[in-house]
Amino acid sequence: MLYLIGLGLSYESDITVRGLETVKKCKRVYLEAYTSILMAANQESLEKFYGREIILADRELVETGSDDILKDADKEDVAFLVVGDPFGATTHTDLVIRARELGIKVETIHNASVMNAVGACGLQLYQFGQTVSLVFFTDSWKPDSFYGKIMENRKIGLHTLLLLDIKVKEQSIENMARGRLIYEPPRYMDIATAAQQLLEIESIRQEQAYTPNTPCVAISRLGSPTQTFKAGTLQELSEYDSGEPLHSLVMLGRQVHELELEYLYQFVDDKEKFKKFVEQDQEFFKPAPYVPPEDVDSE
Amino acid sequence: MLYLIGLGLSYESDITVRGLETVKKCKRVYLEAYTSILMAANQESLEKFYGREIILADRELVETGSDDILKDADKEDVAFLVVGDPFGATTHTDLVIRARELGIKVETIHNASVMNAVGACGLQLYQFGQTVSLVFFTDSWKPDSFYGKIMENRKIGLHTLLLLDIKVKEQSIENMARGRLIYEPPRYMDIATAAQQLLEIESIRQEQAYTPNTPCVAISRLGSPTQTFKAGTLQELSEYDSGEPLHSLVMLGRQVHELELEYLYQFVDDKEKFKKFVEQDQEFFKPAPYVPPEDVDSE
Repeated sequence: MLYLIGLGLSYESDITVRGLETVKKCKRVYLEAYTSILMAANQESLEKFYGREIILADRELVETGSDDILKDADKEDVAFLVVGDPFGATTHTDLVIRARELGIKVETIHNASVMNAVGACGLQLYQFGQTVSLVFFTDSWKPDSFYGKIMENRKIGLHTLLLLDIKVKEQSIENMARGRLIYEPPRYMDIATAAQQLLEIESIRQEQAYTPNTPCVAISRLGSPTQTFKAGTLQELSEYDSGEPLHSLVMLGRQVHELELEYLYQFVDDKEKFKKFVEQDQEFFKPAPYVPPEDVDSE
Repeated sequence: MLYLIGLGLSYESDITVRGLETVKKCKRVYLEAYTSILMAANQESLEKFYGREIILADRELVETGSDDILKDADKEDVAFLVVGDPFGATTHTDLVIRARELGIKVETIHNASVMNAVGACGLQLYQFGQTVSLVFFTDSWKPDSFYGKIMENRKIGLHTLLLLDIKVKEQSIENMARGRLIYEPPRYMDIATAAQQLLEIESIRQEQAYTPNTPCVAISRLGSPTQTFKAGTLQELSEYDSGEPLHSLVMLGRQVHELELEYLYQFVDDKEKFKKFVEQDQEFFKPAPYVPPEDVDSE
């Protein structure tokens, strides 16, 4: 049996009781170690907590060596641990499809991920549109496919969750070209960088998918002991020191409920100012005012 | 301290290790018992698992008696348990706001909920639009606000998660009018009812937000030992026997990736037929074909 087990967001003990029982009985335990990190734990502390050795699974192993992971999983139990929930990333769907092809049974033990825990910022989950990803820009590569998606969400008044880039075990272009297996230090996009990249693309595209005054919520270290929320405009957040990773960003949509706003006030510098920015932002993509149909009998 | 603790989807042991440790040390333990149910557990089995007495919190207690729940929570630890994740329902945001007003610290221990575990059906979470709720129709009350929201999602190609109605501890209109505290047996909307209600509204509105041939995925008992997925058209699912609760429904958007479709095939009766319906449905809300700008120099 292949067990896909979500680890949740931060602590070793964020694994579920059922997840922990399962890990303990598995023959081999893999930890997917390239799409996210567990903020208040590491390989050593996890091994101690589980009483099991952990095999780190990097992108290469998961994407091209999945048959190694699945070896003998029809006869013995193998655990594949994923930070958050196992179905957060496309890669793991791939692994399940491969397992099924090999006749290996698969069971999933779910856990919290940023996709649902983001509700902790006070914005209602059912009011979110599609989720977008923001990758580190380089001088020559500034992918902006997020822009159209944010526009689509905001046109219908929805909030947008932006997942910020994580670079783990990446090679520099030079090292890659020379075939040297030297990896760059890990990089995690912070809130200021994300906000600056968003502003840069808006200044190029100028289609007003959002503006420097659009209200956002910075979500830092969600679910960890130092979890922090900060609400402000995109401009304000472009100068915000968000501290240690991981971070996500939420851009508000027009349909902000009273209760959502009430909750956000605890995360703002200046309540009245923030409220003004929210009201101002609600003017964008506002539906045309209702005009009653002409009364044909009126003449 | 007030602890909001997510219980996950099904088993007693779906609580996180940290959640369980916390419950065990709390003075009072409430279980929110009206927005969802834990499928493979009940009050008795939970009390045994925690070694603690549980106070069931119905809607009335949570919405009007929150100060009872929060009593002395500034001095002692109180746990408020929620099936899924604590931030799935608006009500709990309310409770947190009230706690903060009273100067009570709040900590959240997250868990999986349908909002992220729905990824287990193989559709990518970032491709979902806003979430909608479907309530039981009566002869005189058929609220259809979901219709416009599905339309908005599908116009931009996104999938829609539909949460199906749960009626727990509800009074009949007659008993309510007579002030009799007699409650109806709990009701959980099944897939066929949901599909029929969707078809009924489409036949009234006729704006083609979807059609009887629109592909959907029925999600039954997500995260439980008898979890089942069934992919088919809305028409097909209107006759589907989905078995025991709980159920959710996903309606596909136009942007179905190859990998998503590949995954869904294991849940269909007839792969070729399903594929044909998906392709047919993708014709709705299709963006206009790209027309290259006229070459002004061509003459």
